[in-house]
Amino acid sequence: MTKVTAQMSVSLDGFYAGARHSGDDGNWMDSAEAAGFFRITRWVIDAMAWRERQGFAGGRQDTNSDIVAESFEAAGAYVMGRRMADGGEIPWGEEPPFRAPVFVVTHRPRQVLLRRGGTSFTYVTDGIASAIEQARAAANGKNVAIAGGGSLVRQVLKAGLLDELELHIVPVVLGTGMRLLDADLDLADKEAIELTTTRVVHAPNVTHVRYTVNGRAALVLDDRGSGTGEPSPGGRDAV
Amino acid sequence: MTKVTAQMSVSLDGFYAGARHSGDDGNWMDSAEAAGFFRITRWVIDAMAWRERQGFAGGRQDTNSDIVAESFEAAGAYVMGRRMADGGEIPWGEEPPFRAPVFVVTHRPRQVLLRRGGTSFTYVTDGIASAIEQARAAANGKNVAIAGGGSLVRQVLKAGLLDELELHIVPVVLGTGMRLLDADLDLADKEAIELTTTRVVHAPNVTHVRYTVNGRAALVLDDRGSGTGEPSPGGRDAV
Repeated sequence: MTKVTAQMSVSLDGFYAGARHSGDDGNWMDSAEAAGFFRITRWVIDAMAWRERQGFAGGRQDTNSDIVAESFEAAGAYVMGRRMADGGEIPWGEEPPFRAPVFVVTHRPRQVLLRRGGTSFTYVTDGIASAIEQARAAANGKNVAIAGGGSLVRQVLKAGLLDELELHIVPVVLGTGMRLLDADLDLADKEAIELTTTRVVHAPNVTHVRYTVNGRAALVLDDRGSGTGEPSPGGRDAV
Repeated sequence: MTKVTAQMSVSLDGFYAGARHSGDDGNWMDSAEAAGFFRITRWVIDAMAWRERQGFAGGRQDTNSDIVAESFEAAGAYVMGRRMADGGEIPWGEEPPFRAPVFVVTHRPRQVLLRRGGTSFTYVTDGIASAIEQARAAANGKNVAIAGGGSLVRQVLKAGLLDELELHIVPVVLGTGMRLLDADLDLADKEAIELTTTRVVHAPNVTHVRYTVNGRAALVLDDRGSGTGEPSPGGRDAV
């Protein structure tokens, strides 16, 4: 059954890139956004399965490479944000790494862009849900992968459309940057999004944690701590 | 050798409690801060090793309980923030769960408070580094555990005084709240705090990840992605 999935590399403090680069402010490659992004994704750039898709030589054949290969294999179609699609168009070249239909969420209508190796870019102007539905129809029973960026992943989560999230947690603290799980999730007071951890893979330089998204739920105080009275508020920072 | 350690339960979006409660705004137990806090620490409250220290009946004897027991066992002394110490003073009662000397970082001088079971509270008014040094002397070769709250843990990390951090990552998204790794770490542009993951323990409802803190480092762009040119900026959100 087709699932809607997303996977992102994040720092320990939840960033997938450094502080957002403004186009007016020099070359992206020299920006703090890029410096953070390349630190966070270093494990991917080292992985043979990623390098092979990019047409790069070398790389490591290890657990991380298996994780990358598995992600590519599971995706029958992609949904992508406009900023990512624009940024990638030239560097991905004639044979982008996706090898599957990509549906780009955008406000600007544009003709389908066909590339070699099975990748196509279809520009969807009537919203995220529509892009996901079109991707689902194209996915041939495989998963619909939300390719990014973080803002799109967050919107899909917020809309209740995400079935599975995998975080690749990298042991670095950036302090500032572009945060995946940012404040605009529209959660009410004492409301949360509950998930279930379904898989943890520990590699030396990154921890891969996969979650099923269960959906929104109220935060209800239970009384398990009340064996001899109320749960201790003084304990609130002890754990 | 004595290490300075900290461990905190955090949500997937990095919060250790809900939105901070103001004292003027009703009972803490009814606050969003508490609702988030008790959701995040539910695995602890269920653990037999924690319940035993609190004098509560029941609890589960499982991996989570082993993790709690291990944390208590490793700590020879604690350093604690003032807000946590104040909040805990009454609920912890005559026999607090620490069973070791606790050094409270505060601006208000106060006599040492002796409790049963080996717990004492010493109020340190000359700063965090002094509190850690006093705790180190008292720890008898065991570790100095930064008991919390999050603000104190962050200050110790920022000051370069933390050797080891363990995060108990709970699969819930709160959207807002008190964030452990918040923006006031004073990291420069393209500077990060690097860590090494040393242990990952996966329990059904929480993932325990332990890190050694290596310290501050510049984010340097390497050229591993440049097999056929520059690393692809378009790929910045793909992973």
